[in-house]
Order: sequence, then C-alpha cells, then structure tokens
Amino acid sequence: MKKRIAYCVSDHTGVTVEAVAKSVLSQFPDFEFSLIALPFVDSAEKAHAAAARIAATSDALVFSTLTDPALRAILRASCPQLFDLFDRIAPAVEIALGQTITPSPGRIHSMANNYESRMDAVNFSLALDDGLQPQRLDQADLILVGVSRVGKTPTALYLALQYGLRVANYPLTPDDLEHASLPDILLAHLPRVRALTLAAERLAAIRQARYPDSRYASLEQCRAELAAAERLFKQHALGVIDTTRMSVEEIAARLRNPPEDRVSMDPQA
Amino acid sequence: MKKRIAYCVSDHTGVTVEAVAKSVLSQFPDFEFSLIALPFVDSAEKAHAAAARIAATSDALVFSTLTDPALRAILRASCPQLFDLFDRIAPAVEIALGQTITPSPGRIHSMANNYESRMDAVNFSLALDDGLQPQRLDQADLILVGVSRVGKTPTALYLALQYGLRVANYPLTPDDLEHASLPDILLAHLPRVRALTLAAERLAAIRQARYPDSRYASLEQCRAELAAAERLFKQHALGVIDTTRMSVEEIAARLRNPPEDRVSMDPQA
Repeated sequence: MKKRIAYCVSDHTGVTVEAVAKSVLSQFPDFEFSLIALPFVDSAEKAHAAAARIAATSDALVFSTLTDPALRAILRASCPQLFDLFDRIAPAVEIALGQTITPSPGRIHSMANNYESRMDAVNFSLALDDGLQPQRLDQADLILVGVSRVGKTPTALYLALQYGLRVANYPLTPDDLEHASLPDILLAHLPRVRALTLAAERLAAIRQARYPDSRYASLEQCRAELAAAERLFKQHALGVIDTTRMSVEEIAARLRNPPEDRVSMDPQA
Repeated sequence: MKKRIAYCVSDHTGVTVEAVAKSVLSQFPDFEFSLIALPFVDSAEKAHAAAARIAATSDALVFSTLTDPALRAILRASCPQLFDLFDRIAPAVEIALGQTITPSPGRIHSMANNYESRMDAVNFSLALDDGLQPQRLDQADLILVGVSRVGKTPTALYLALQYGLRVANYPLTPDDLEHASLPDILLAHLPRVRALTLAAERLAAIRQARYPDSRYASLEQCRAELAAAERLFKQHALGVIDTTRMSVEEIAARLRNPPEDRVSMDPQA
C-alpha cells in the first residue's frame, strides 16, 4: 500500500473540501491516504502558515476550497499538487451564469443551512424518539418505524442535523407485531411513515452487544420480529429500506428521495 | 433575484455533490438557486432518465459526481452546463499520483466512514447526554460543558454522526455555578473538556421558546449563568467556543481542530 498525506485546506469549516478529497481519493484503492484538516485559513498570514506546514511534508496532495484567489495563490506558490474546487469548477460556472464570482468565505451557511431550524429539528427528533409524544406525530416530516435497534434513532438524528427535517421514530414492540395491522396512531399518518429493516444476523449482533445472551438478542427472536414487521409494512404498502449494507448517508438519501422523485427508478435496482 | 435550477447528480448518496454545488453557488449572491437532488444514478438507464429530466428544464446547471466516465458522457450529451467533480479534479490527481482512477461508486464509504463506529458514537453520546452516566466519562473523546440550552446536545450528536467521536455533554446547573470550581467529576477529565458559550440574548430567546416568561428564560438569569460559567472556564483555562453566530459545522470544526492544531492560530482572530 502506497501512503500519501492529503491536506484539506478551507477558509471555513472544511466540510466540503473533506468530502471532495474523500470522494476523489477513494477512487485510488492502491493508496492509503492520511487526511489532515486545515480549516479556517482565511487570511494571508494563515495561508502562509498552512503553506509552510504543507511544504514540510514530502509529496503531499492538497485539496482546497479557498474562495479568495489571493489565498489560493499563496498555497500554489509552495504546493505544486494543489487541487482547488473554485479554481477547477467556478470558472465554468461563471461562464454559464454570465457573472463573475463574489468571493465570500462561509457564505454557504446562509444557504439552506439554517441553524435554528436544524436545532429545532434535532430537539423535535429527540423529543419524539422511541415512540415518545405520539400526540405530536402530526408535526413530523417523517416517521420512521421498525423493530428495536434497527437504526431508527441515528437515522432520525442525521436527517434532522443535516437537512432540518423533523423526524419522529416509532419502535414496533413484540406486542405491536402480534396485531394484524400497524398501531392506530401510525395509521393516521401513513403517507409520512417510512419503514426500516435489517438482516436478522446484523440485528442479532447489534442487540447481542447490548444484551448478551438474551432472548431479545437471539437470532430466532430477531428473525421472528423482522418477519412480522415486514408483513405489516407490506400490508400497508409502506416504503421499506433495508439498511444492512448502508451508511447513514445512504439511508438518509433514500428517505429524502423516494423512488418516484428519483428519476422514477427503484433505489434497490 | 435571478432564478436558476441546479441539479445535483450522483451515483451514490449525493452528499458530496450537494456540498460542492452549495459551496460554488453560494458565491453568486445575485442568483437564487433551487437544488434538485438526483442520487443513485448508477446505470446507463438511470443516466438517460436523469438527462431527459434535466433537458426538460430550461437553462439548468448540473453538478455531478459520477465515477463512471460513460455515465458522465450520457449526461454531457444533453446537458451543456455540466460540472463534474471527477472530470475537473481527478485528472490532475491522477498525474500527481502517477496512477489512473479505478471507478467505483460509493467507495468513499469504506474510507473513514465506518457505520458501526459512528452508530456506536451516537449511542454513546445519547447515553451520556445531559450529564447522564458520569462514571463513563473516561470513555469520551470529548466532554462538552456549558449552561442549559447552549447547544451541547446537537453539537455532540453532530460530532458523533459525522466523525464517529464519542462526545459526552455535561450541563452546568445553577448549583454548579455557585461553586468556586468545576464539578469534581469534570476535573478528572479536564484535557478533554470543551466549553460552549452563547450571547445572553440568544440564550434567552432559545429558553423563552420552551418556557415562556419563566425566570429560567429571563435575560437576567441567562446573563448571570453565562457570566458564572465563563468565570469557571477561565479559571480552568478551558478552550471556550462562542456559538452565537456559528453553524453546527463550524462549532464541530473548531472542536475537532483546536487552535494549536490549526496552523497555530486563534480561530476567532
């Protein structure tokens, strides 16, 4: 495995530049990369310090999102292997829009990144975690259902933090699973209900980590619960996401973009 | 305000391409952009469907992260204004590494994106929310302290979800604030303790939304609590982050990259 260091330089948080670097570098499987984040590089002084640090690393790759061309020039002078998002994409966008850029670090946060509404969504999702406060389900953007430990809470929190969605989650208890239909409280909100499922082996492993050798964590019990839950989902024609091999980003993307919205295609195809 | 539609096409979740599009488009303040996500475009059939949908939109911009050059070619044929991350950055990286790309959609998730460890971190952060289970603080990567409603919980959950950090949070009660030093349980972990603060007016507004006209939400009470908390932070020489004008990404970036790590500069400067 060839090893390389990649710096991620940003004049703001570095979230975007890290995503870009990971996305590109993941396409070179023969290399092992160590990423070093250098966020908040928003002055000439800081750019010179970053450049000096990078120059001291042999053969480093440098990804950057620096809105100010002057700061990019400082880095470029000592980092030949500089890949800046604005350098490489913005000029084409300027042509497409017929307008030149107005550099402004961190302006992304004024766009679809409203802090208040996201924090409000997190508080909502925590307040309606695990079936709490069912009387407020009418305020939810989405309601996740599934058996215990299928991944409802982290998914709800991710959607709240990342997209400001108010996401409740409702656990299907063994008691619920014995009924012929979903609990009445959910039936009233069916268009916003989404179901999560998981391979029984994975579920058993997750439960096992918390309650070793319990009936709750047994493969048999997990299989029975998942089968009963899937029967209910099918009966109500609910969209079901099998999270077995998915990251939380993938689950969230599929929940935000149901098949009909997404070029009319089956996400699992 | 000039309006334009921008599509974000990805062969996977679309998290990266949306970050790229927002980052670039936020630099054109005279335009108002509507972003439409088209994730999971990972076959020729889906690419043709996406291209048809985009072609039906007049003057659309198209951002994409499509690892397969054949899929990019399908889009390019009907979308003249296509900005693909791989088209524009990968060739230079190939030269720098002396190796051509091995296209593989979604491989980013095998890299520093471990689902299990992030879910484990979320569970940890929920279990140690709001001062719960202080006996487990030695397992925390970070411990956030601050007065009630200063933003500890969403910040802890964001760090857990995004970076897999195990982040506890500990609220300073009015009782804690009367003491001459931080609670003993925190003193044992001081190197991992980070303090959050907020402008009193913002804190009062946040509390007001939950408990209108309470003493707890009064500006006077918020001022007194914040002043007492800041005295304690100063006494223990804790790093303090004022979150008043920050997004959760900014707070997280500052917590992950303390000043000494970040080109040795004051994040607030």
